[in-house]
Amino acid sequence: MYRTHSNGELRASDINTEVTLAGWVQKTRDKGFMIWVDLRDRYGITQLIFDEERTQKSVMETASKLGREFVIQAKGTVIARESKNPNIPTGDIEILVSEVTILNEALTPPFTIENETDGGEDLRMKYRYLDIRRNPVRENLVFRHKVTMAVRNYLSEKEFVEVETPYLIKSTPEGARDFVVPSRMNEGQFYALPQSPQTFKQLLMVGGMDKYFQIVKCFRDEDLRADRQPEFTQIDCEMAFVEQEDILNTFEGLTRHLLKELNGVNVAEFPRMTYDDAMKKYGNDKPDIRFGMEFGELNEVTQHKDFNVFNQAELVVGIAVPGGNTYTRKEIDKLTDWVKRPQIGALGMVYCRCNEDGSFKSSVDKFYDQEDLAKWADITGAKAGDLICVLSGDTHKVRAQLSALRMELAEREGLRKANEFAPLWVVDFPLLEWDEETERYHAMHHPFTSPKPGQLDLLETNPGDVKANAYDLVLNGNEIGGGSIRIHDKETQALMFDYLGFTPEEAKAQFGFLMDAFQYGAPPHGGIAFGLDRLVSILGGQETIRDFIAFPKNNSGRDVMIDAPAVIDNEQLKELGLQLNLKS
Amino acid sequence: MYRTHSNGELRASDINTEVTLAGWVQKTRDKGFMIWVDLRDRYGITQLIFDEERTQKSVMETASKLGREFVIQAKGTVIARESKNPNIPTGDIEILVSEVTILNEALTPPFTIENETDGGEDLRMKYRYLDIRRNPVRENLVFRHKVTMAVRNYLSEKEFVEVETPYLIKSTPEGARDFVVPSRMNEGQFYALPQSPQTFKQLLMVGGMDKYFQIVKCFRDEDLRADRQPEFTQIDCEMAFVEQEDILNTFEGLTRHLLKELNGVNVAEFPRMTYDDAMKKYGNDKPDIRFGMEFGELNEVTQHKDFNVFNQAELVVGIAVPGGNTYTRKEIDKLTDWVKRPQIGALGMVYCRCNEDGSFKSSVDKFYDQEDLAKWADITGAKAGDLICVLSGDTHKVRAQLSALRMELAEREGLRKANEFAPLWVVDFPLLEWDEETERYHAMHHPFTSPKPGQLDLLETNPGDVKANAYDLVLNGNEIGGGSIRIHDKETQALMFDYLGFTPEEAKAQFGFLMDAFQYGAPPHGGIAFGLDRLVSILGGQETIRDFIAFPKNNSGRDVMIDAPAVIDNEQLKELGLQLNLKS
Repeated sequence: MYRTHSNGELRASDINTEVTLAGWVQKTRDKGFMIWVDLRDRYGITQLIFDEERTQKSVMETASKLGREFVIQAKGTVIARESKNPNIPTGDIEILVSEVTILNEALTPPFTIENETDGGEDLRMKYRYLDIRRNPVRENLVFRHKVTMAVRNYLSEKEFVEVETPYLIKSTPEGARDFVVPSRMNEGQFYALPQSPQTFKQLLMVGGMDKYFQIVKCFRDEDLRADRQPEFTQIDCEMAFVEQEDILNTFEGLTRHLLKELNGVNVAEFPRMTYDDAMKKYGNDKPDIRFGMEFGELNEVTQHKDFNVFNQAELVVGIAVPGGNTYTRKEIDKLTDWVKRPQIGALGMVYCRCNEDGSFKSSVDKFYDQEDLAKWADITGAKAGDLICVLSGDTHKVRAQLSALRMELAEREGLRKANEFAPLWVVDFPLLEWDEETERYHAMHHPFTSPKPGQLDLLETNPGDVKANAYDLVLNGNEIGGGSIRIHDKETQALMFDYLGFTPEEAKAQFGFLMDAFQYGAPPHGGIAFGLDRLVSILGGQETIRDFIAFPKNNSGRDVMIDAPAVIDNEQLKELGLQLNLKS
Repeated sequence: MYRTHSNGELRASDINTEVTLAGWVQKTRDKGFMIWVDLRDRYGITQLIFDEERTQKSVMETASKLGREFVIQAKGTVIARESKNPNIPTGDIEILVSEVTILNEALTPPFTIENETDGGEDLRMKYRYLDIRRNPVRENLVFRHKVTMAVRNYLSEKEFVEVETPYLIKSTPEGARDFVVPSRMNEGQFYALPQSPQTFKQLLMVGGMDKYFQIVKCFRDEDLRADRQPEFTQIDCEMAFVEQEDILNTFEGLTRHLLKELNGVNVAEFPRMTYDDAMKKYGNDKPDIRFGMEFGELNEVTQHKDFNVFNQAELVVGIAVPGGNTYTRKEIDKLTDWVKRPQIGALGMVYCRCNEDGSFKSSVDKFYDQEDLAKWADITGAKAGDLICVLSGDTHKVRAQLSALRMELAEREGLRKANEFAPLWVVDFPLLEWDEETERYHAMHHPFTSPKPGQLDLLETNPGDVKANAYDLVLNGNEIGGGSIRIHDKETQALMFDYLGFTPEEAKAQFGFLMDAFQYGAPPHGGIAFGLDRLVSILGGQETIRDFIAFPKNNSGRDVMIDAPAVIDNEQLKELGLQLNLKS
């Protein structure tokens, strides 16, 4: 037995107990006649003391050789600490060491193992096993475990069954790129890693499992944007004999439970907003509603004057920045530059100061009088002391631009509080979205999403107007979950595949098993999937999902610690019936 | 809302309640004036009644059209059932239906959806979603869920943290073949799917996670034997600052908890047996100790006579079959044929009947007298009425042969009772095992396993004698878990790699990160991994793991339901920098 106690548990009540501890040397203070060592493990820190009056010489000698991150075992007696440390739970005691063993030595770590480290991102990733020794990283991983336990116990309690679906499945060209896995036993053929267990969970519903969930790794071979991982984890859920309302209630319950259990926060009933409203009010289908700054559409009150920029715009839309009238001219100019950056792409920004005396001062005073500007204030909800920012142009683009500005301003003003939680259901998503590149409609959610009842006919005439039984759960401006009621009859599914450009042969080759299944008594069903990495990071009050993943990959999809991916030998390739055919 | 109640919950106390139910039509009985429908869902069966005196004509008409596995919704009133059915929990009531809706029609399923189905294995796998509707299959999956929940809650309670390790890792030629995943973003390079998270869990220990577990999919591209799956699930565990004793106690606790929770069985302290003893007593490193029939080595009492077969044998060994004296001569001949089959490979079998009167009758009476045979009985523990079966030859082979015979006889005699549980720790495994094919020693467990203290020197002189801190947990003759104390210092690990034939360059390329990690303060650590599929099937009292996997693959590694693996298009191959190079 290496230890009788952890380094986080000894208290004043343990004084005079003989103990054995083990752990890492966090730091040492050596005064020659006396040596103190902070011994660390996952559970805390305990101070060891070596004292030439009370400690054997050989033990003193070993103690004097201990370096940072050495792994040691120490036996001794719990004694009262002379100068107590109120900052740690073990701060009332220390261990007078009688015996010390070096279990393993350590090179000086390449960065400090402290809450605030001097290690850069790259170094921390290469030595991730050392990074995990740091409290914040380890606590994030423990937090993630608590979240998954809470999810599992909650859903299990509600009669959901976790079913493992296969990882070696079949490639489908729909959606993002699959990672593929060559099969040696079936030469020339490939498995694909699942982008989600979508079809399998639907088959489980056909199979009568009734309520399914799974916390499961999914894979997408996408060009990685910042904070995207080629492998990610979903809380995947599906229910049979349900309508949208049942799903929303069930998973609102789950989310509320998590907020209560993990954050101690009681949240009222989640508000709901249609996709159209979200776009109109926030320019975004995942609005952060922790703060106001709702969009005010100003076409009616701006397009009767001589300001051509607004007159020619499809949409003129503004937001009121609370207290923004304190911004200097220079600050406002910088804001204008910010929206004009290529990433945002606005052509310019009109602003209007709402003075404390009730008067207005805008950048377009030439065209608009006080009465006009009062209407702007009225529509955007601006009060005395606020600043109105107005963008104009093509509806789709200008909404995205103003949404970006809104988020940026909220960030600057400290309105995006990590410990405040504002969930929101966004409902009535369009069934299809127009893809500029291929010049055709694609399924916005996926091809199994059910159109709203009675809207199927619209597909031929106004496909973009067809709404789906699809919904997203948004938390603090992040989509944490999304799902839909599925199609459950073969005819509608065939129609949908046809509409999305699958020939009947392609549909059969890729989804024949699902179409077959629908013939044998498929129940109405629907579900939702949560992005666990994102959910955990938001509940944890942070933004970066990488901080909540034990061994994340970098933006090139590489694990820099183990140096993967890597070349494999030719023998292995040959066995798989493959050879390289490099482009470069 | 599709239903107010499930089909398993209505009781006599619900009589007169208006309810809405939904589910599948299990069967109908149509007497013209009265129709009964058994409505089924995951939770049970409820009887619906349609009666021309009390039911509208249009509803009667719909009811008469219902076929097996139709999905319907029925509204009506709970009434007392005239002839109660004591076999089902809802047997006291039925639903007088006022409204029925067909939610989905169904083709006649290709096999019956009953506990005992007429569908063969192949058909059931192709239509697995229908197979899952059958109670036994669904109950197996629900049971699996209960096992994983019990494991997670138990370990979580004991301060273990579930950490997700990556699926896209690096290929290592050691051990079984890896499945590889070509990387598009890193052309010409490949990820590998993990055969186990071994190195990652060790790095988590170096990272101070202290107690780790994960229920995780693992992958092995092996030629599939019966009941092996290319993807399988492990309960993977690791602890720091532990000796073998700590691991055995912890996971004996877990296993005992599972037996108690899921089977209601209290098991005493698990017996322990060395590998050497297990081989000697049972010819097997995973002995089924639910029954006796221990091996008796007979060299000393057989090799002094003129029976050359025994005299020339390295080992002469027998077992006593309880009550086996009732076997006819013909039955014994058949048994002899059984051990001579190529799968077993014995050259013959000697037997000795233990008569009720205390006399013996053997197939080698020419060479051995009553006194000799009495010694055989003594050594094998045979009693009057038993049969002694004796095999001889090369120790290694003859033990395997007699072990197979022992299991076969136990099976025939009904000694392998599914509801009886006999766990056993097998300890002190050899560190290395000789591989005939490559004519060298390989790591028996894996190259990270620690030799027993002080035995490292033996490596040079008697490598086969070196024992490891390695252990298996055996349940009812199946290895359900195995693990070891790991090497945790760089020098021993380097020595081990060297011994296993890795050049320093190869060791560095493949495991450099682990060797590096060991330099920065690695704690002593060890762990265990359970095969979940096997564990669940044994706890579930069954033998076939496939019955506890939702969507298993067949012996060629194919998913016959979705028809995977499959060819992918050339475009996809090209993007990956690959082309086919088929051998055939």
